[in-house]
Amino acid sequence: MTVVPYATLLSKVVEIFTGRGVPEDRATVAAEALCHGDLTGVTSHGLVNLSRLYLPLLDQGRTDPRADMVVQTDLGACVLADARRTLGLWSASQAMELACARASRHGIGLVSLRGATHIGCAGHHAARAVAHGMIGLIASNCGGQRIAPPPGATAAMLGTNPLALACPAGEGHPFVLDMSTTVVPTGRVRAAAREGRPIPPGWLAGQDGSPVTDAAALDRGDARLLWLGGDPETGAYKGFGLGLLVEVLAALVPGAALGALSTDGNRDDDIGVMALAIAPDLLRTGFAADATALFAKVLGWPALDPAAPVVYPGWHEGERAARFRAHGVPVPDAVYEELCTAKERIGR
Amino acid sequence: MTVVPYATLLSKVVEIFTGRGVPEDRATVAAEALCHGDLTGVTSHGLVNLSRLYLPLLDQGRTDPRADMVVQTDLGACVLADARRTLGLWSASQAMELACARASRHGIGLVSLRGATHIGCAGHHAARAVAHGMIGLIASNCGGQRIAPPPGATAAMLGTNPLALACPAGEGHPFVLDMSTTVVPTGRVRAAAREGRPIPPGWLAGQDGSPVTDAAALDRGDARLLWLGGDPETGAYKGFGLGLLVEVLAALVPGAALGALSTDGNRDDDIGVMALAIAPDLLRTGFAADATALFAKVLGWPALDPAAPVVYPGWHEGERAARFRAHGVPVPDAVYEELCTAKERIGR
Repeated sequence: MTVVPYATLLSKVVEIFTGRGVPEDRATVAAEALCHGDLTGVTSHGLVNLSRLYLPLLDQGRTDPRADMVVQTDLGACVLADARRTLGLWSASQAMELACARASRHGIGLVSLRGATHIGCAGHHAARAVAHGMIGLIASNCGGQRIAPPPGATAAMLGTNPLALACPAGEGHPFVLDMSTTVVPTGRVRAAAREGRPIPPGWLAGQDGSPVTDAAALDRGDARLLWLGGDPETGAYKGFGLGLLVEVLAALVPGAALGALSTDGNRDDDIGVMALAIAPDLLRTGFAADATALFAKVLGWPALDPAAPVVYPGWHEGERAARFRAHGVPVPDAVYEELCTAKERIGR
Repeated sequence: MTVVPYATLLSKVVEIFTGRGVPEDRATVAAEALCHGDLTGVTSHGLVNLSRLYLPLLDQGRTDPRADMVVQTDLGACVLADARRTLGLWSASQAMELACARASRHGIGLVSLRGATHIGCAGHHAARAVAHGMIGLIASNCGGQRIAPPPGATAAMLGTNPLALACPAGEGHPFVLDMSTTVVPTGRVRAAAREGRPIPPGWLAGQDGSPVTDAAALDRGDARLLWLGGDPETGAYKGFGLGLLVEVLAALVPGAALGALSTDGNRDDDIGVMALAIAPDLLRTGFAADATALFAKVLGWPALDPAAPVVYPGWHEGERAARFRAHGVPVPDAVYEELCTAKERIGR
């Protein structure tokens, strides 16, 4: 591990993105979204994806660094836009900011994107609403990419279809639920595969449903990624249903690519994104105080093990971000090395 | 089992509700919501709850048969209302209809209820949007009632906090995901307890996390209901996070009772409900055709076992409802007996 000041990480990523033709204001927004993974300890969705995912997308022309998003329908509380292959790390944050602006007038704001590219950590974009005292919800499908099969099916149908909700928690770290609708995202399986670590039973299964603990089996095609809930008896249909819920809200609404209907199940082009903001202060007084009381109460909830206090989603990530902002962000040596040389590999 | 014509079931329930002082138009809406459980095979949320839940609520004055809901804030796309202890079986459907009316003007409509009572099957209310060609989402907390503890906690904090999404699927049965955010709702555990059946491992756990298959252990206080995801390694924090997501959207937004903050964790008074409708036809052309194609493709997806075809949530329920409407609804003898005598037990 190399411990790198957060500002250094950001500026290196900005430099790499601008070197690929991304305007500096967008590059800054995108760099914050990318570094959010490492800053919060969600390393599977951080800098490791720069050379694995975002630079190839730019270099292959599947992401357009400069295109403008185009609003196709504007109903006030509700906007449909074509993201036109702009960096999803940027467009998803733009969508959430626009949703918040609309919510500040209508109480609710929905921005529905088609033509998006990979957005990184959904929770980072959702949490933008918190700065406005609002609740933010982000759902994103994986474009036409097929990763996980329905329960009882032989072939993959949907992506890992992430869903994130952020809510203010007063002075405390905001509540940020950021989850794939599969048991884990593919990034966590691949991280284990890279390190040669076995994975716990319950993440992957063989064709016959038996647990697979060899992480490399996923990319070898020897195992399927399971939906949240695991087996049918313990809720697999709910996890698959949540995957379809995201497919509907994020992609069917704006007319983005759908896993079940796409011609190339390996490419995550034409991703759909839903950004929804709710402004509770416009609906009633006392929301902020109630939110503060709720999340403070969760933190004080009696724990089985006093050394492992009860927390809400986003709390550990908020703690890590505060520590890493102050003392530097730990980055795997190989990833940092890539970061320092990526600028030179322009257009490869 | 007694097989009863659907119209007979409905009229019996209407008669019982009107006998308790519920106006006939409301009683009709509520009866449809209650019978929806038996009609779709979700018997844990059907007629069995009439004498267990709704009649006691009316007879104890915790549900007000005649009160009017009061709109507290109206922002056009967004409405906050106090349901004033009216029958949740009725108020949740009213909320969804109002959300659809607002979505027909703004593309999106949000109706946020406080002061609600038990709504029955969330999916039934969500599916009202489908008749308008819209997507409907219902979330409901359990008021101040505490049922499931956070992972690693000694005490229950939240209810089973259901979430439902409905989406048109052309001529096919609508997509209706209707799920508790725990592995199963308490109703399914109690049904097994009544019948003396063991439950599968993964629904309940002892204090030490070991599986409990004795269904009666839940109400004895000897076991905890698990969140969707089961163990922390397989997603318990996601299930708990989804429970909190519902608590935020359904109850924190309108200022309804919150499990973590309520003084009486055994009563589900002051329930919060979110009804959200999206009108995709206002955003773009082609939505209905795309939805039809998507869900038809799911039904044709290659299955491991040809005798167990791949379906989407709501399909089996839609099949059952069609069959039971035509040929009668199977109702357990004891439940039918209760239904036939409940009218006489007014005010008990």
